[in-house]
Amino acid sequence: MSAPAQRACGRRMRREIAEQPDRWQDLLAREGDHLAHLHEEIRAHPPRLVLFVARGTSDNAAVCADYLVQTSLGLPSASASPSAVTMFGARLDLRDVLLVAISQSGESPDIVSYVEMARAGGATTLALTNAPGSALAGAVHDVVDLHAGPESAVAATKSYTAELLALTALIAPDDVRAQLDDLHSAARDVLSAAGPAVVELAGRYRYTTRVVTAGRAFSSASAREAALKLMETSYVSAHGMSAADLLHGPIALLDQSVPLLCFASGGPDANAMTELVELGRGQGVDVDVIGDGSVASSTLPPLLPRGLAPQLRPLLEVLPAQLLAAEMALARGIDPDRPRGLSKVTRTY
Amino acid sequence: MSAPAQRACGRRMRREIAEQPDRWQDLLAREGDHLAHLHEEIRAHPPRLVLFVARGTSDNAAVCADYLVQTSLGLPSASASPSAVTMFGARLDLRDVLLVAISQSGESPDIVSYVEMARAGGATTLALTNAPGSALAGAVHDVVDLHAGPESAVAATKSYTAELLALTALIAPDDVRAQLDDLHSAARDVLSAAGPAVVELAGRYRYTTRVVTAGRAFSSASAREAALKLMETSYVSAHGMSAADLLHGPIALLDQSVPLLCFASGGPDANAMTELVELGRGQGVDVDVIGDGSVASSTLPPLLPRGLAPQLRPLLEVLPAQLLAAEMALARGIDPDRPRGLSKVTRTY
Repeated sequence: MSAPAQRACGRRMRREIAEQPDRWQDLLAREGDHLAHLHEEIRAHPPRLVLFVARGTSDNAAVCADYLVQTSLGLPSASASPSAVTMFGARLDLRDVLLVAISQSGESPDIVSYVEMARAGGATTLALTNAPGSALAGAVHDVVDLHAGPESAVAATKSYTAELLALTALIAPDDVRAQLDDLHSAARDVLSAAGPAVVELAGRYRYTTRVVTAGRAFSSASAREAALKLMETSYVSAHGMSAADLLHGPIALLDQSVPLLCFASGGPDANAMTELVELGRGQGVDVDVIGDGSVASSTLPPLLPRGLAPQLRPLLEVLPAQLLAAEMALARGIDPDRPRGLSKVTRTY
Repeated sequence: MSAPAQRACGRRMRREIAEQPDRWQDLLAREGDHLAHLHEEIRAHPPRLVLFVARGTSDNAAVCADYLVQTSLGLPSASASPSAVTMFGARLDLRDVLLVAISQSGESPDIVSYVEMARAGGATTLALTNAPGSALAGAVHDVVDLHAGPESAVAATKSYTAELLALTALIAPDDVRAQLDDLHSAARDVLSAAGPAVVELAGRYRYTTRVVTAGRAFSSASAREAALKLMETSYVSAHGMSAADLLHGPIALLDQSVPLLCFASGGPDANAMTELVELGRGQGVDVDVIGDGSVASSTLPPLLPRGLAPQLRPLLEVLPAQLLAAEMALARGIDPDRPRGLSKVTRTY
């Protein structure tokens, strides 16, 4: 790559990562009342099930929302399987079900088809999208505009945290929702503290073709999204999963040649994550931790504030992972704004 | 490894793979009437939601069951998140919900805790387990004994297909259930045809540290289970996923250095799988296909019978993948009966 081309590399992705705190403020200013109203509606008339339909990055936001629904609303939650509908013609009885479709572009045909089936099956349908003029927005009962602004890097960053923010405002308990207005400030601190630490980590990971990322419950969403970013921008085989699922088999692949990056902070999941970290270190694995310092990291400083509600962690802990994906791509001479084989809008059927 | 030790390597896993057709006959002989009765109960009194709780291999059987519930019963289906309950104290309203717990050993504490919460929340609870004296079996309303016999290789094979068989007998439509009694015969054909082809494929994959496996809908369960077996026995970073999810990001990591193994046969998903196979080949990826010949493979012969119901595919197409996992381990000097870092019963909390 020529020097000017290299300077331009990743410019869009890095700009979109950096602007997230501003976009969160925009989203809450413009959609905060709407989300609060929807939240009251759900509390007043609880559905029997909350069903999420999403693909890729948006599906990782749904992982966090799944835990929010169960722990905050005491309702079961599910992730839809669009192929059952689009390929095998399933028609579901979805009376008293809230269907939440999550899509940056709002254009994937399988998501739109699923929403149409769900409406016909009796569901109340809501879309969270960055494209209020999209096919998806036209297909649902109500739309929350993510107000993330144009996202031009192929790897989604600011639309992911906008989705998380909207889902948290929609579902989380009041004491957690009350903290959303100030979270942009904590995000700015995380982004500035993470910068140098992540450059060092990207250097250490420079030659690996394999990474495993892990977290438990809410933080399993961060593990999955971090892995997806690393796959998209750096072509690494990155496995992101719940730490419990890791123990049920995939942990066998960990050794000195595969680093383990954990998302772990103080909270009910801290002991399980500490055990995983110690197990990995005992086997000679290069383990590091993105968290608040409650679970000992190897080289990374504590990046998250102590005492943060676990529901809010995914919004902050993904920020260093996004920076890591951009830095790892650049260290390998890949332009993270334009990964091979991907385009901004993915259409699956 | 010494020569006698090498001969003993993988003996248990290979024996357990080979005995699957016999175990299927046992299961249907002993539990067929019970499963038929449960099937009638579900049809007569449909729950509002079928919820599966499982980990590891059993969770891959739940992926297939998820599609069965939606396409056969027209009901929504969900995969439980045990951590929401065990770590964050979620208490769900599960009235009129059927909870199906799937576990070979029946001993993972988080699965048992989830079942106890579900019963308290009003769910009807059913366990599919190979251990009818286990803690799980004691916690549910009804138990289906998988009759897989003692499974001594750490990597689960015969318990996985016993789970699939029981789930299909429980949920699938009558015309599909009617074919289960004869499926052992097709399985014997698949196993004998797959043997030499898989040895060749294991030779081709001998030095790779990365593989991607993909299928759509029912066959996405096979892709996930194949990847898990490869991770467990051969320490390969194997990504197994729905072909649609692959297109939404992870496909960027595919190139000449990462083979793609697809599960694809004739059916409503054939066109989408053909597109993926051609896309991969166009990018120089080493693509092969386990299927019935409807989607062109590279070196593998057609291994599945033509015209098989898509719901039955997971039972047959995982057989070559199990053999591949055993062969790849042996080619690398790993004993697939005793992978590092794993034990037969995994306890997560």
